[in-house]
Order: sequence, then structure tokens, then C-alpha cells
Amino acid sequence: MNGAEAFIETLYAHGVEVCFANPGTSEMQLVAAVDRQHGMRAILGLFEGVVTGAADGYGRMADKPAVTLLHLGPGLGNGLANLHNARRAGSPVINMVGDHATYHLHYNAPLTSDAAGVARPMSDWVRVSNSERDLAQAGAEAFAVAQSYPGKVATVIVPADHAWTEGSAPAAARPAAPAPRAPAQAILDAAAVLSEVEGPKALFLGGRALREEALVEAGRIAAATGARLIAETFVTRHQRGAGRVAVEKLPYFGEMAESYLADFKAIVFCGTEPPVSFFAYPGKPSFLSPPDSRLVRLASLREDAQAALAGLAKALNAPAEPALIQAPTRFEADPGKLNSANIGAILSELLPENAIVSDESATSGGAAFSMCAGAAKHDWLQLTGGAIGQGLPLAVGAAVACPDRKVIALQADGSGMYTNQALWTMAREQLDVTTIILNNGSYAILNIELMRVGVQNPGPKALSMLDLRNPGLNWTQISEGMGVPAVRVETAEELRAALVEALAHKGPRLIEAML
Amino acid sequence: MNGAEAFIETLYAHGVEVCFANPGTSEMQLVAAVDRQHGMRAILGLFEGVVTGAADGYGRMADKPAVTLLHLGPGLGNGLANLHNARRAGSPVINMVGDHATYHLHYNAPLTSDAAGVARPMSDWVRVSNSERDLAQAGAEAFAVAQSYPGKVATVIVPADHAWTEGSAPAAARPAAPAPRAPAQAILDAAAVLSEVEGPKALFLGGRALREEALVEAGRIAAATGARLIAETFVTRHQRGAGRVAVEKLPYFGEMAESYLADFKAIVFCGTEPPVSFFAYPGKPSFLSPPDSRLVRLASLREDAQAALAGLAKALNAPAEPALIQAPTRFEADPGKLNSANIGAILSELLPENAIVSDESATSGGAAFSMCAGAAKHDWLQLTGGAIGQGLPLAVGAAVACPDRKVIALQADGSGMYTNQALWTMAREQLDVTTIILNNGSYAILNIELMRVGVQNPGPKALSMLDLRNPGLNWTQISEGMGVPAVRVETAEELRAALVEALAHKGPRLIEAML
Repeated sequence: MNGAEAFIETLYAHGVEVCFANPGTSEMQLVAAVDRQHGMRAILGLFEGVVTGAADGYGRMADKPAVTLLHLGPGLGNGLANLHNARRAGSPVINMVGDHATYHLHYNAPLTSDAAGVARPMSDWVRVSNSERDLAQAGAEAFAVAQSYPGKVATVIVPADHAWTEGSAPAAARPAAPAPRAPAQAILDAAAVLSEVEGPKALFLGGRALREEALVEAGRIAAATGARLIAETFVTRHQRGAGRVAVEKLPYFGEMAESYLADFKAIVFCGTEPPVSFFAYPGKPSFLSPPDSRLVRLASLREDAQAALAGLAKALNAPAEPALIQAPTRFEADPGKLNSANIGAILSELLPENAIVSDESATSGGAAFSMCAGAAKHDWLQLTGGAIGQGLPLAVGAAVACPDRKVIALQADGSGMYTNQALWTMAREQLDVTTIILNNGSYAILNIELMRVGVQNPGPKALSMLDLRNPGLNWTQISEGMGVPAVRVETAEELRAALVEALAHKGPRLIEAML
Repeated sequence: MNGAEAFIETLYAHGVEVCFANPGTSEMQLVAAVDRQHGMRAILGLFEGVVTGAADGYGRMADKPAVTLLHLGPGLGNGLANLHNARRAGSPVINMVGDHATYHLHYNAPLTSDAAGVARPMSDWVRVSNSERDLAQAGAEAFAVAQSYPGKVATVIVPADHAWTEGSAPAAARPAAPAPRAPAQAILDAAAVLSEVEGPKALFLGGRALREEALVEAGRIAAATGARLIAETFVTRHQRGAGRVAVEKLPYFGEMAESYLADFKAIVFCGTEPPVSFFAYPGKPSFLSPPDSRLVRLASLREDAQAALAGLAKALNAPAEPALIQAPTRFEADPGKLNSANIGAILSELLPENAIVSDESATSGGAAFSMCAGAAKHDWLQLTGGAIGQGLPLAVGAAVACPDRKVIALQADGSGMYTNQALWTMAREQLDVTTIILNNGSYAILNIELMRVGVQNPGPKALSMLDLRNPGLNWTQISEGMGVPAVRVETAEELRAALVEALAHKGPRLIEAML
């Protein structure tokens, strides 16, 4: 067995079943090894950002890693932005990155680069294989890292000669490490603060604390203490909808977030850190929690959120029934021209039970998130690291992980362009994804940000750098060019009809909503 | 004047006239500064690989840098692959990469990353600004680095607070360093080898040695010594065509290249290093020159090729008239179904005088390069670093640098997908680029490489990872979706008609050639 086969067998034995791939010559032995392992599914992406973003989406929904296959340092470079997002999400991801044969590196052939150096900024862990036998060990180690709670990005650099050399064998599977527990004192501190402090108090939730079971505990804590439940602005995976425990949402803009939190006398953080402004702005604060508030870190992203919340509920002797159960809601969509509100109303009405929403909707999609709070139960995934171009790949990965669930990609036009190639993978794999492109012809958020950072009277050249018209993008044509049937809609009535049609069928569709 | 303005003014005073941009919130002050400097053109790319690839194309044709504008570490990550290619080309490029305000970094907001760490593997030089005043100095230093012969990739990380803080001023322009000269001894050694060695000998040319004037000197050396002239496999910018000095081409595949060079008793290298195999293959050599040959390094990529060749011609007392002047050639295109040969014949016939060809044609375009040797004079640009997705962005940059010259992008379908967003920039800027997509529905080169690395009997899963059908890409729709008029052709007659039509008009067109 060669090194590549031993590596792939090791990953498969640990439960890795999917390979998102964009290989080149130096990865041909890895391609062959994936080919031979019949239990491992290979999914081609036509750009590496699709591959890494899909691995993130898969990891969020499967709670175990897929493996990516990437072509040397430059191929990995193309995947970095979505690895950054995956890392911020706490997603489990394993990257296998081919590199030149060890003896070939010093010849400095055209594709030579510092692959480990490219990997390091966006990986939690990087390992260069030392031999064909070590490669399998590296695979076992990568799995252990990737699967450490809640998930990490582990990158293995695979020299071609280690892949093709015979004499290797799979590495033994290792038991996964249990999720680290929050300190007992943190639970006691949180209980004390929530019991004793007078006035408004909040339980601030992120990461795994937004899963359904964790939210039951959070709802019990709310019942016991009157604490409000607030979710971080950009969530990895938020299980919500009618019948689940409802959570408020921290606004995006720093000054709104600061004002939102200003009155709280105590805030307990679970699955995340105290929120900070997404960007810095002249004269505005970075840290958003009120200075005179009691802040308690119950559990970080890397500590077991479910256990911490259960422990806190117990310490508070909380009632069995959670508070804040979300009632079903229904909104009337204003007819005529599309806007954020009628899009949100239509999505909320039609969202299928157990749907997954990949939300990279930026300015135009804000209403959809809040209006879907009382829709049928669903999972909502967001852009965790701010590196745009995540939404469509994330939908690919979620659909691969959950073939029986409908995936809705709610996608802004500007950010969608970065990884538009994801549409082709949806078509090839016949993934059950309905993409809604919110086409407003603009990096609309940047027009707002331009003012917020203090730029006065921007000229036409500045504005042109934030504008996607001239020419306008026609996503319907782009989508059909990649094999995904598409339709353009201009009104609420048309959107509703198109969405009904798309949801009634399995397989990929794209609806281009003109704003 | 704030730091951003001082930085942009400094670059402009050094001669930087074009900014290829994909900005975000942390770069808004840089956007405003570019806006205010009316001499600097701003060109938006909808993906960072378009931005950096365009800067490469611009640098190759303008022989001075454009500046890129990129959004923190992840945005830079998306641009790395084409920076790798630019660096391998010896192109002058300046990157300005926004980052969080210095005081905001430690809050670890979602977009926080090690931007300098991302930059380092694909930059020749990286500098993080230290203050609003230091930022302008960093700009002057970056220009000096980028413009060092023949060109380098210089990256400046710009913290947002340095950009927005007032009290800066432009840095004084510095004289550019002259191109380093090859050692006199190298010229003597080369002259001795070419004069004394019996049997076949070659002058092996790369980098700036493939410019028209350098080739005149090479042709004189050929006239004096009988040396054959051979170009490296992937050239930065090769000035060729009828009436210019003709140069042979080293084949891509290692064993063919090795065999091509096997009989030479002496090889003199200028503007490049002795060639090595692009990838390693089991049991095949990396170093391709014959072991018993006399190898002389006349000038490296970083030493003045023109001066070295002129010096060598003088040392050889070479005649004034170069040998190997290329005669005009004309090929008949076989009618009917398209193939590499009739595409090459049609392109060779129709290529306009002074055209620029951006060649990322991979397997389907090989004939075009050789058949255009005797076409009208033109510049041929290639993928220097092997990181695919360069061709369309390179065409964008070349067209911006040379608005009065026709640019032909000869583009394979698989590699074109990585940076298809370049089409939109062609449409917005109405660049005079005719793109010919060679649609063979495959990563065809990888099907060959799979065998070459020793994979026997690949299964359907392996082959599916190298295949672009199911669904087939429709580039005509993709192109029109981004605003570039497009036509699909199936035969030589149709291609010829479409190319005549495209070349007769200014502005972007796309021809999808079905192979």
C-alpha cells in the first residue's frame, strides 16, 4: 500500500466519508487512493474556495470533517478565505494539500511555494508528512485535531513521493477526545450573577450553544432568572423556528450593538466571547459590552456549551420547561416590487420543515433572518469569518451532509460572485439547493461603511468601486451556463411562485430576485 | 493629509497610475484617497484573483507596477495564486492590503488574521506600516522593490488607523536602481563555450531575454556561433512573429524536454535558470539538461538580459545582422470540426499586427503557439507559475496597459473557471479583449498526468475528478451573464467568421470554441 492509500484508508477508518476535491498533477496518487476507497465520495469543485467552503458547510451539519484535496501552495491559497471562515466557525475540516516530491523541491520548479507557510495563517494545525508511513500517522493526527470540540482546521501537506511510495499502512484509529468542560467556578459565577444582579441581564450565546438541545437549557435558565437570550451576530449553526427556544440577535453595526447591550447589568457568555465591533471606526469603541456591567464567561467556543448550560440550569434549580418558546408567525408579503421585507415574508411562509438556510445575504437579507424566527424549524448558517464568498459553497457542503433536507442559499450578488463556481457542483451532484440571489447591483454594505468610516463626499471613482452595475450581472445566465436552471423575478408574486416551484422539486434551482 | 492620501500620492509620484481594486470596509480610506488622486485609474475586480492577475498583466506590458487594493488577510488569500504567477514572471506589482486598526487587532474580530503571514509566501517583500507617516515611506520602498529588475511583488499591510490618521505627507521619490549586470566572467565563459565547444549548442532564453531587442542580440550570437535559440517553456512576455528573431520552444513534459536537450554539448542560459521538470514523476529526473553538457549561466532572471546578450555578442565579435529572422508563414485551416491545429491556423492568419496573446490554453492551445511563430508581430504571455486561473485576468491587465493593442485571451475551459469574474471587468472597462475559450469539457492535462505518475486503470471516480462534463459548461451564457457578448462555434468556418467579427470591433467579445 502506498502512502496515499494508507492516508486515505486512515481517514476513512476514522469516519471521513467525503472528499471535496480540486486536484492537480501532484495529487494524482491521492486521486487514485480516493478512487479505490469505495466508501469515500469524491466531489469536484471548479475552484478551491468552493472546496473549502463546502467542507465548512459539511462540517457544520455532519459534526465531523470532510477532507479537501488541494493543489500545492497556490491551490491552498485559493481556499484560504473559506478556511478562515471555517476556523472562525469552529468547523471540523481536514485539508490534504499536495506538494512537490521532497527531492524535487530544491529545483524550484514553477509551482514551488511554501505550502506550510500558506496553510499556517488559516489553519489551527499544520503538519508536513515526513515519509510514506508518517503520512498515515499525520492523517490520524489531523482527524484528532479536526474533531476536537467543536472543530478545527487541520492541514496536512503531502509530498508527492510520500504519496506514491509503497510500504505504508493505515494508522490505528484513536478515540476522540471528549469536549473540554468549562470550569466549575465559571458555572457558580454565572449562577451567582444571574441570581443576584438586579435589572436586565442576558445570556449571550454562540457556537454550539445555539443548537436545539443547548437552547432548551438556555430557555430553562431564562425561566429561572428572567435573563434575555441573545445570539452572536454571525452564527455557525443556529437551530430555530416555531416550537424552539427563541433567541434575540445582536445587531451588526457596532454602535447599534453597543446600544443594544447598554442597559444590561449582567451578561453571561456561552460558546463565544464578549462581542467586539466587526471593524474599527474612528472614535468608536471596539469592545461593545457596557463598562459597568458584570460579565461572566461561562464557556468559550472550545468548552462544552451544552454541558455548561445544563450545569448552570442545575445550579439555578431551573424549571424543567424552558421559557421563550417561539410561537409560529406569519407575515403578509407586500405585493409588487421586491424588498427585504417581502422577501423575508415569503421565505418565512414557505420555508420547509427542517430546511437549512445558508445565509450570505448581507444588506438585503436582514429581514429574512428575523422574519423566519417563527417559521418551521430550520437551521440557519452564517458567514462566521467575514470573508465573503462563503454562502454558495456552504450550501453545497450542507446539502452533501444532509441529502434529505432542503437547503436554501440566501445569497447577495456581490459576495456570490467570488465563488459562483459552486453552482456547477450543485448541478453535477444534483444537490437539493434552492439559491436565491439578492441582486441589488451593489456592494451595498460598503456604501454604508464608506460614510461610517468618515469619508465625506465620495466621488464617482470611489462609488464605482462599490457598484456592480455597468454592466449589471445576469445571474440567470451565469447559473444556466453552469447547469443550474434559473429564473429571474421582479415582484413578490413572481418570487413566491418561483420559490413554490423550486421547493416542490428535488435538485438545484436558482431564483434571481431583482431588488 | 491622512496616511492613505500620503501613501497614494507617493505611489502616484513614482508613476503608479492604475489601481486594481477589490476593497472592503477596512480599505475605505484608501478608496477615498484613490478617488481624490485624479491621475490614478481605479478598476474594480469582482474577485481578488482577477485583481492580482490583472496587476501581473499590466506589469508585464507596462514594465512598471500597478497597485492592487485588497481586503485584509482573506482578500489577499484570494489573490495569492496570481501573485505566485506574477512573482515567477518577475512582474512588478505593489499590493496594498488593508487590515484592522492596530488597536482593534487584539480584540480578534471575525476578520482578524495574520495578513503579513498570508502575504509572505507569495511576496518578494512584505512591510507592515508603523504609523500614518511611515505608510508613505512604505509606499516609496514598495515601489523601489517592485521596480527592481525585472520586477518583484511588494506587499504593504495598511492598518486602517494609519490610513485615516491625519498628519502625514508623501515620501520623496527615489531614483530606481539600475538593473544588476551579469558578471563579466559569465560573458567570457559563455563566449568561450559557444566558440570552442564542438557540436550542437544552444542559447536558452527566458524572462527579459525574450524581448525584441534582446532577441536581436541573441540572433547575432546565433549568427556568430551557430547556437540554436530556445525559449523556456512558460514565458513572461515573448516578442515574436514574422521579421523578428525566431526562437524554438522547450516542450512541457519532462521526458520530451530532456530528449530535446540531450544532444547539446553546450547550453548558455540567459534570463532564466537551467530548466527542471514541472512536476516530479516516479523514476524520472528533475534536472533536464544533459549531464555531460557544458552549462553556463550568462544572466539570471534578475540580471540585465539585454546587456548580457549585447556583451556576449560583442565578445564574440558577432555580425550586426541577426540570424534566424522569422519568415511569414501561412497555414490552411482544415474545415469542419475544431481541433488544436485548425484553431492555430486561424489564429495565426488573423492575428492583428502588434496583438497581445494571453495564453492559458493548456492542451488545446499548443499548436496555436507554434503556428503563430510566423504571424504578424505580437507579444505572447504565458502562465509562469503554474497556478491556473491566470489567463483572463492577465488579459485584463495587458489591455489596460496597452489600450491601442488588441488582446487575445486563449483560454482553456477548466482554468478559465477559476477567475471567470474577469469577464465582468472586461465589460465594465470595455477592454479590447477577444477571449477564445477552448471548451473540451475536461482538465485534459490531468488525464495525461494521471497516467504519467503511474496510476493504472483509474476508476470512474478518479476520472470524474478530471472531467468538466455532466453538466457541460456553457461559456456563452456565463459570458453574457457578465456583460461580454459571446458566440459558440463548432467548426473552423464558424470560428474564423467569429474571430473576423470580433477583431473588427473594439471592446470585449468571447468566442466559445467547442472541441
